[in-house]
Amino acid sequence: MKIDFDKMQGLAPAVIQDAATGEMLMVGFMNRDALEATLRTGFVTFYSRTRQTLWTKGETSGNRLEVVAAWTDCDRDTVLLRVRVLGAGKVCHTGSRSCFTQPLPLGSALQPREEEARR
Amino acid sequence: MKIDFDKMQGLAPAVIQDAATGEMLMVGFMNRDALEATLRTGFVTFYSRTRQTLWTKGETSGNRLEVVAAWTDCDRDTVLLRVRVLGAGKVCHTGSRSCFTQPLPLGSALQPREEEARR
Repeated sequence: MKIDFDKMQGLAPAVIQDAATGEMLMVGFMNRDALEATLRTGFVTFYSRTRQTLWTKGETSGNRLEVVAAWTDCDRDTVLLRVRVLGAGKVCHTGSRSCFTQPLPLGSALQPREEEARR
Repeated sequence: MKIDFDKMQGLAPAVIQDAATGEMLMVGFMNRDALEATLRTGFVTFYSRTRQTLWTKGETSGNRLEVVAAWTDCDRDTVLLRVRVLGAGKVCHTGSRSCFTQPLPLGSALQPREEEARR
């Protein structure tokens, strides 16, 4: 299975979902090496855009993400990994299980754009 | 809630999850205008990177995605939308419900890189 890393300059978004509950845990980015390491080792490994290096999620905290199943999508530019969370089960660096804890309001706009806020 | 669109040159990945079943349906990209349209109208609207325009998912097929809840993550550079699929309920242009239908093999590498395959 050939993944299309060209659309994002060598990267593909990797969506991490709890295999047991379906909860969305986080989104990271993988380059080809990160995805290969993930599939080969069975533990989620991302490419850090800021540090420009591979990092295995949980390698220091112990909250590693064991891959239960992996898919790509119809145009092969995104990866979905269903995982089992090891360690204390806290995926987010803030200490929560999921990184998606901040609700966005429906039926309203985002914060005013800066130029609009200045009027 | 201010979303960080700067990390991806004005875009953020938007993860679409079935609100009823937890199934991962697709990943698209949103710029600020697309996210504002999504939150304001309650229907998922992406930014097409290839066509460089906004498009409301399902506007021609009828399989629109009605937003049930929206979140952003801890570093505010990704959006999670839990949706109800309208119409025939087929999200993927291939006719399946989810775009994630192609399994990736665990315990093995991806296809050989081109230069390796030529050896």
